[in-house]
Amino acid sequence: MTKRFKAAVIGGSGYGGGELIRRLLLHPDVELVRVASVDFIGEPLSAAHPNLEGRTDLKFEGMSPAEAAQGMDVVLLGLPHKVSATKMPELMATGARVVDLSGDFRLRDAALYKKYYHAEHPCPERLTDGTFVYGLPELNRDAIKKAKYVASPGCFATTIELALMPLAKAGLLDGAVEVVGITGSSGSGVVPSAGTHHPVRAVNLRTYKPLDHQHIPEITQTLRDAGAKNVDIRFVPVSAPLSRGIFATCFAHVSEGTSADQIRALYKETYKGEPFVRVPEKRLPEVAAVSGTNFCEVGVQPGTDGAEPGKRVVACFSVTDNLIKGGAGQAIQSMNLMLGVDERTTLEDPGGWP
Amino acid sequence: MTKRFKAAVIGGSGYGGGELIRRLLLHPDVELVRVASVDFIGEPLSAAHPNLEGRTDLKFEGMSPAEAAQGMDVVLLGLPHKVSATKMPELMATGARVVDLSGDFRLRDAALYKKYYHAEHPCPERLTDGTFVYGLPELNRDAIKKAKYVASPGCFATTIELALMPLAKAGLLDGAVEVVGITGSSGSGVVPSAGTHHPVRAVNLRTYKPLDHQHIPEITQTLRDAGAKNVDIRFVPVSAPLSRGIFATCFAHVSEGTSADQIRALYKETYKGEPFVRVPEKRLPEVAAVSGTNFCEVGVQPGTDGAEPGKRVVACFSVTDNLIKGGAGQAIQSMNLMLGVDERTTLEDPGGWP
Amino acid sequence: MTKRFKAAVIGGSGYGGGELIRRLLLHPDVELVRVASVDFIGEPLSAAHPNLEGRTDLKFEGMSPAEAAQGMDVVLLGLPHKVSATKMPELMATGARVVDLSGDFRLRDAALYKKYYHAEHPCPERLTDGTFVYGLPELNRDAIKKAKYVASPGCFATTIELALMPLAKAGLLDGAVEVVGITGSSGSGVVPSAGTHHPVRAVNLRTYKPLDHQHIPEITQTLRDAGAKNVDIRFVPVSAPLSRGIFATCFAHVSEGTSADQIRALYKETYKGEPFVRVPEKRLPEVAAVSGTNFCEVGVQPGTDGAEPGKRVVACFSVTDNLIKGGAGQAIQSMNLMLGVDERTTLEDPGGWP
Amino acid sequence: MTKRFKAAVIGGSGYGGGELIRRLLLHPDVELVRVASVDFIGEPLSAAHPNLEGRTDLKFEGMSPAEAAQGMDVVLLGLPHKVSATKMPELMATGARVVDLSGDFRLRDAALYKKYYHAEHPCPERLTDGTFVYGLPELNRDAIKKAKYVASPGCFATTIELALMPLAKAGLLDGAVEVVGITGSSGSGVVPSAGTHHPVRAVNLRTYKPLDHQHIPEITQTLRDAGAKNVDIRFVPVSAPLSRGIFATCFAHVSEGTSADQIRALYKETYKGEPFVRVPEKRLPEVAAVSGTNFCEVGVQPGTDGAEPGKRVVACFSVTDNLIKGGAGQAIQSMNLMLGVDERTTLEDPGGWP
Repeated sequence: MTKRFKAAVIGGSGYGGGELIRRLLLHPDVELVRVASVDFIGEPLSAAHPNLEGRTDLKFEGMSPAEAAQGMDVVLLGLPHKVSATKMPELMATGARVVDLSGDFRLRDAALYKKYYHAEHPCPERLTDGTFVYGLPELNRDAIKKAKYVASPGCFATTIELALMPLAKAGLLDGAVEVVGITGSSGSGVVPSAGTHHPVRAVNLRTYKPLDHQHIPEITQTLRDAGAKNVDIRFVPVSAPLSRGIFATCFAHVSEGTSADQIRALYKETYKGEPFVRVPEKRLPEVAAVSGTNFCEVGVQPGTDGAEPGKRVVACFSVTDNLIKGGAGQAIQSMNLMLGVDERTTLEDPGGWP
Repeated sequence: MTKRFKAAVIGGSGYGGGELIRRLLLHPDVELVRVASVDFIGEPLSAAHPNLEGRTDLKFEGMSPAEAAQGMDVVLLGLPHKVSATKMPELMATGARVVDLSGDFRLRDAALYKKYYHAEHPCPERLTDGTFVYGLPELNRDAIKKAKYVASPGCFATTIELALMPLAKAGLLDGAVEVVGITGSSGSGVVPSAGTHHPVRAVNLRTYKPLDHQHIPEITQTLRDAGAKNVDIRFVPVSAPLSRGIFATCFAHVSEGTSADQIRALYKETYKGEPFVRVPEKRLPEVAAVSGTNFCEVGVQPGTDGAEPGKRVVACFSVTDNLIKGGAGQAIQSMNLMLGVDERTTLEDPGGWP
Repeated sequence: MTKRFKAAVIGGSGYGGGELIRRLLLHPDVELVRVASVDFIGEPLSAAHPNLEGRTDLKFEGMSPAEAAQGMDVVLLGLPHKVSATKMPELMATGARVVDLSGDFRLRDAALYKKYYHAEHPCPERLTDGTFVYGLPELNRDAIKKAKYVASPGCFATTIELALMPLAKAGLLDGAVEVVGITGSSGSGVVPSAGTHHPVRAVNLRTYKPLDHQHIPEITQTLRDAGAKNVDIRFVPVSAPLSRGIFATCFAHVSEGTSADQIRALYKETYKGEPFVRVPEKRLPEVAAVSGTNFCEVGVQPGTDGAEPGKRVVACFSVTDNLIKGGAGQAIQSMNLMLGVDERTTLEDPGGWP
Repeated sequence: MTKRFKAAVIGGSGYGGGELIRRLLLHPDVELVRVASVDFIGEPLSAAHPNLEGRTDLKFEGMSPAEAAQGMDVVLLGLPHKVSATKMPELMATGARVVDLSGDFRLRDAALYKKYYHAEHPCPERLTDGTFVYGLPELNRDAIKKAKYVASPGCFATTIELALMPLAKAGLLDGAVEVVGITGSSGSGVVPSAGTHHPVRAVNLRTYKPLDHQHIPEITQTLRDAGAKNVDIRFVPVSAPLSRGIFATCFAHVSEGTSADQIRALYKETYKGEPFVRVPEKRLPEVAAVSGTNFCEVGVQPGTDGAEPGKRVVACFSVTDNLIKGGAGQAIQSMNLMLGVDERTTLEDPGGWP
């Protein structure tokens, strides 16, 4: 059976690349034609992704991004930050649709890009001219459907944005938000390092880049787009000893006049009908319920206290699998929307428990 | 769209039940009509299986097995050992096909059942009259296709049998086989106990029932069916701190005249064309490559030493996800074969890495 | 050699009891005379604590607390909340010093006790009459030295109080403090339950009792004692998949006039000379550096932003081993102070890395 | 107080070095004078060992081994294999006692060294002339007391040797022994690599070097020294997702005439009085009971079957903390013996549970 669309993965040897490939191999409408990489050239995909042993005859190809994109309906980029931006002009010349998993085209402000990614952006005009749509379907579904270029959100960013979006959309998010995002180790990628060395990581909890993580401006921009006012994200990431999953706790401070019941109803209402975000009825979000899947769980616990005059604290929670809804799964979701196929294709498996 | 077959899960609140339900909800040909349980009666399935939150409107129903089986084409049993055997007569009276995940109908020898399960079998005639087919497709595919009743294999048993089957089928397996099977904690089921208490389990390795595990006679019987002679399984199970997966190491002792290359070729050949058993080209089996999937990886390392006159030691390795290929996935595989649909339906996802 | 003091552990079969016993067995000045318990009566201590196999001939004794305290210089209580309060009158009648690890005598406000422990306090007069000293040496060292009765702090409470105490003592802590405390599973104790069932816990992150944990009033009371003003603790506990350790992130909001350097200097200064609290020079606190030890690490990251007029956010971090500095180790530290022996006795081992 | 002996650690930045330093800092009779390293020169020890933050003013010194050994009573070497052998001649010239944690002086057969360590030994005469004593106190206590040079055993080797030594000493060990050794990740050392990358390691079980591990000749030599005959070790190492600990399962095949009770009694008898090896009364060995300590637990499960004419299979189990009894702790034990101080000094803590 001939599939309708052709796709290539560029930068396919990392964890995100592996998840993209897995989904594309299962996709009824999209054919994975090739996988480009600078590592493992000439080797089968299973050299990097042992789970793909025997599942495909494709090999990693040592092509340039532009070569890899030739003749494709869509390319999905698993390239590192900074590399993606450098390769984008040649990629855009090929005419292929692009879903970029890197952080290079998420921010509209080149100064913030420089501040948080520690590099001049090579094509800053692309940040401001509307070329890229931010690939969060819960905010930008219609725009994604029409988009040729999508900047797929970061893992922490996705998780935290979905935790706070009901408040933002309702105009209730204003001012400081304190956030602790706890993450599994797969978010650090495939390259071994001190922070992901098992002997220590397995028994450790530590923070890195507190109040200084590069997803802060991405979250701020997105929440403003959704309706937040002077939102000020104070974000502390924490490394935890699990392989997959993010758990975000956000303290928002809403007007005292908004009741706990109103807030709960708002969360239910916001995500009604969303295929991949759910608000559990009788419990708060937990990572094990979504790991291995494209689902996000969101929950809320309004506070009863009142240290701040006129304000009520609201603890907002959210969980995702950082590599799927926080990465490759969401990219496939955007690809599906761009191609006009069912948004849920290859993403509906609710995963195992536990 | 109406699906062709109707199914019920009986005993659906455990981990095995959850995996069965997950697959059936995704199945294009089989409709999950109901889930019976003695726990959570009247509650949504997500009360036991948080991953199913919002995926189905089904609730746990407090029906007897016979009631639950009424009108079904097939029922899948996630009942405990001993309970399954007690309920089987009434189930068989309903006319539904049955796939039983318990150990109650795997052994043909009622005396061994009594010895290892510590109970008289309530219907021992069913063990010897050919009513049940042992649901290991790699050995009994044709018989499963024709079967009305399948006894689905145990998790350790599946893993160890697949590690040794190439030798057994080739008539090379004779005499003692030393086996260490290392297992994740989900194999112990959903009920909390000292052996699965996280504070200790997370930092522990220990054995239980060494040389006395109830899968020993199951493995012995199956390997004999496959062609082994006086096989004597010395099996030591070890608990390890991961949630899912089994890693089996088996020491077989083959005739010195069989070369290392012959043995390697034998493994390749045996599993050629098998949809769910693979022999990786360039590495040995590892749990992370198969966890979350119905795949089994098998590998072999022939020894060069010769302490035993005329014998060569062969280290055989195998990995499975204990809840899928070692449990519910394999049961679905048998169900597919029984119903005449593609054996691989709902089971083809190669899972994530890591 | 005769040791100078005699001690008993009452309620010695839990994890806290085990840590108390381990330290007392190594103590040069205190002899562990007996261990009372309602479980394991007549069995060796290793029946509950396998690490003590062969280290002592003591057995669990089925004595009442008052019987166990007879002739003792000090008793250490590992009893559950509510049980401890019930047994206290008879214990006090024996004349022995008491260190109580339960939450029963930490709060001075019986109404808060009732609200958070869901029971009327059986001897509320003991909460207000100064009988008990709160056993946090960094705040109450002199009082502990003179105390006959010590209420040893909770694990989350210790960790969070030490994170915030420099600000409290300096009069800089006022108003809301948002706190996320991430904990290992051993804090849930020795009894298996759904929340500590390994198959799920090993791959999960979830919250419980958000904004409603019983340590909130304990932390509030202690920080006020240390100098905080209208402190309002919004505390979200999160369960993580490790056995031991707590990582606390606290967002304090100090006057903008206080510089980042002043804050850093304050932390250094506050804990200068403290034997068990340290402020690492070149990194932030991490659990693996203190697990298995009585040490607490504290660190601070002042923010540069200013969403709140006149305020500066300060992220404060702290780590402990929940069973040692957050439990039995700190109790031994108090016992040492009460008995007039070197506070550090049996507690100086810096533990392993990793 | 002046301590009687002076010691240096050479190669002190790895995990073994860290454990040596920790013990020496606590030692009442031995003063740690200096720590030499090629990494972290000039930095405090806590740069490599965060647990030592604030515990010592020592810094890593960029000295040659010979310089570091000047004036020392004993030096402990945490150097890599092959480096240790190269530096030994200059070290021996200093007159200091040496405890070497590397594998360079354990084997007496230079050909086996070459085969398993893939290098010519630079001073093979030192392997055969009795210069080095193999530092296993349970076998060589008297020789260690008199030794000037000790080759401290490997982690797998220690664990497996202690599992089998009772049979070896009794002359019951003859012929093939199948062994599976399951290890935590800290045994792979401090340098991050693919095999210890947390995202995969945390959910994996895999083997490496099956039937080919470098500890095979070490174990064989030691068991022969202890009384075994033609022992043939078939050893499969398996990586498991925990930080510390080894669990070894060994299948020995003894004469059928030896009863199960005799074997059990033999194990009890062999280790009676040993300070660091214990045979638990009512359970089999488990890692959590010894991790963080210098203790080894040994146990045995005699089989009742008889596939081999005249033989009885015996499953022997053993657990250690790979960095302590399997590494630095045992080296300190040897050092204590060499210096004539109590063998147990700094090693008596039974650790925590869990």
